[in-house]
Amino acid sequence: MDDFVLTPWESRGRIDYNRLVETFGLRPLDGSMKMRLREAAGQDHYMVRRGVFFAHRDLDAILESHRSGDGFFVYTGRGPSGQTHIGHLVPWVFARWLQERFGVRVYFQLTDDEKFYHSHALTLEETARLAEENARDFAALGFDPLKTHIIRDTVDMGVLYPLAARVAKKITFSTARSAFGFGNDTNIGMIFYTAIQSAPCLLEERPVLIPLGVDQDPHFRLTRDVAPLLGHPKPALIHNVMAPGLGGPDSKMSAADPNSAIYTTDEPAAIRRKVNRCAFSGGRADIDEHRRLGGDTAVDVSYQYLRLFFEPDDGILEGIREGYESGRMLTGELKQALIERVTQFMEAHHARREAVDLDEFWFDHDEYKGRMRR
Amino acid sequence: MDDFVLTPWESRGRIDYNRLVETFGLRPLDGSMKMRLREAAGQDHYMVRRGVFFAHRDLDAILESHRSGDGFFVYTGRGPSGQTHIGHLVPWVFARWLQERFGVRVYFQLTDDEKFYHSHALTLEETARLAEENARDFAALGFDPLKTHIIRDTVDMGVLYPLAARVAKKITFSTARSAFGFGNDTNIGMIFYTAIQSAPCLLEERPVLIPLGVDQDPHFRLTRDVAPLLGHPKPALIHNVMAPGLGGPDSKMSAADPNSAIYTTDEPAAIRRKVNRCAFSGGRADIDEHRRLGGDTAVDVSYQYLRLFFEPDDGILEGIREGYESGRMLTGELKQALIERVTQFMEAHHARREAVDLDEFWFDHDEYKGRMRR
Repeated sequence: MDDFVLTPWESRGRIDYNRLVETFGLRPLDGSMKMRLREAAGQDHYMVRRGVFFAHRDLDAILESHRSGDGFFVYTGRGPSGQTHIGHLVPWVFARWLQERFGVRVYFQLTDDEKFYHSHALTLEETARLAEENARDFAALGFDPLKTHIIRDTVDMGVLYPLAARVAKKITFSTARSAFGFGNDTNIGMIFYTAIQSAPCLLEERPVLIPLGVDQDPHFRLTRDVAPLLGHPKPALIHNVMAPGLGGPDSKMSAADPNSAIYTTDEPAAIRRKVNRCAFSGGRADIDEHRRLGGDTAVDVSYQYLRLFFEPDDGILEGIREGYESGRMLTGELKQALIERVTQFMEAHHARREAVDLDEFWFDHDEYKGRMRR
Repeated sequence: MDDFVLTPWESRGRIDYNRLVETFGLRPLDGSMKMRLREAAGQDHYMVRRGVFFAHRDLDAILESHRSGDGFFVYTGRGPSGQTHIGHLVPWVFARWLQERFGVRVYFQLTDDEKFYHSHALTLEETARLAEENARDFAALGFDPLKTHIIRDTVDMGVLYPLAARVAKKITFSTARSAFGFGNDTNIGMIFYTAIQSAPCLLEERPVLIPLGVDQDPHFRLTRDVAPLLGHPKPALIHNVMAPGLGGPDSKMSAADPNSAIYTTDEPAAIRRKVNRCAFSGGRADIDEHRRLGGDTAVDVSYQYLRLFFEPDDGILEGIREGYESGRMLTGELKQALIERVTQFMEAHHARREAVDLDEFWFDHDEYKGRMRR
């Protein structure tokens, strides 16, 4: 048995991504697939190069649809259970790149209903408030407002529900239970919810590509079974690894523990404090030993955050890796490098976040219906 | 064990209403309750006098809320699986009377999603089409368009869903399964659906009274458990008997068998044919025996339709009963009396049905939100 658990609502233990590829039945994002993506995009993306995106389903069909001129659209999302942390940004930044490189429409779903169903403590008013906070972070990444539509489940169910209903009719309780581990005490909102997460896949007739944390894969396994029954192509997926919590490679970012993650709302002082005090280090017991043996970048959270997100330049990243592993660079210096990158990113992000006009991004039902009728 | 089955989706055997009162835990609509209703309304209604409405839950609380000036609103509905038959009209006609007597707002829910989930054969397009047909029959009964709002689930989910979500979070799979007999092969739309049928109860802060066929009671038993958890009063119910099918007291009106019911779309020739050929008779084997022993009004469908719906005048109905039971009136004459009443009703109904402007009745989200904010 695996010694880790990963579901849309739970993550325990250190994730073995090779094992995930096998047990989930994913396709590894191998060299030839990466090359095809780079050729189609006319550029590569550092998250693909570095294996942050490590697996896919039917990415080849998406590239073929692009090549043939039929095109595709992109859908990603977020369950608003707290402020946005840097782990959430990974698939969004990638979606932004897909929009820029392929000129595609992007739908972003805020599942305020899911988080309400899941958490005893959260009210719909609170998840709606958090949804707006998360939307602000998403839009601030530089999406084209004319081609980007932010969906809030409790606001936009008028459009989603007829699509969700078609999916729901094809999913039995047995199937949902085995995909998600539901019990008899699961509430009926949660049981239905997977149909709502499937619905955006049916918003357009053309194929959809979904960049997502691999924990969300079970939802779309069901959607992929159902979509062909509804005359739609199977949604294609591209999976990213789960960014570790500040506590180290076995820890998770958690809305319940502010010290487990760096949030997009954190001020420079908080960023400095969190990295210096909380970021798990791959350094040795003392400086002498560190100089002699070098640090372990595989477990060092500061290095991993640079690799996952904050240092797109391979040359600079490689310099840091080499310096740290050789013992020339100390943990304090590595942390300082991360603090600088994060602070720089967040200052620019805060400014963009404040300047965002969300009215340009909310899903507009009339615009959508007009577009679909054409 | 009972030798009949009655659920929102199935009805088998002859219903024992006394047993239903006991097993469902209903309050019988007894003489003192009928008197209180009559006093509050300033008039009585023949369906109440005759026991067509035979049970209730918390009708006394509704009358008290009316007396105190807090008022109430009315909610009823229809699952659009076929054209409207006369059995459907029973709670609607009563809702119309409540509106007239108490000046109340009425919400009418067309559950096009439920029927889609329930039936392999029905598409959402077809249930939406039938919903519009049913809406036309409802509106034609003379409701005040300013105080009457027709809800279509797949159109109006934008307003209903946040209310349904609050209900759904409080209902586990176990609870839904025991209320409705769900199995592992039940689709997840059907499992969630009861929350949607509950949602209109939460549309206003004041108490709601729901006239309904007794088969729908299980939905609202759940709603009544949940409403107080959401700060709402328990929905009050007033239950009508199930009108028998043309085939006799043990038969049901069924959309699948056009000869089982009289539909509001039937032309005079069809009405005549159905009553003459298909209406189960309480008459004897031959005329001599009938003259000697008299007919049995308890099983005669023509008599029951007059009692349930088509002959509001107690004096006339009593004359018919006495004539038929004494053997003076023959089955052919009783059928002729029903045919005349039904034809007369339908001619007027068809004219009103054609004249209805549904745009005056569709649930207007902006009007609703404006009203709720006040």
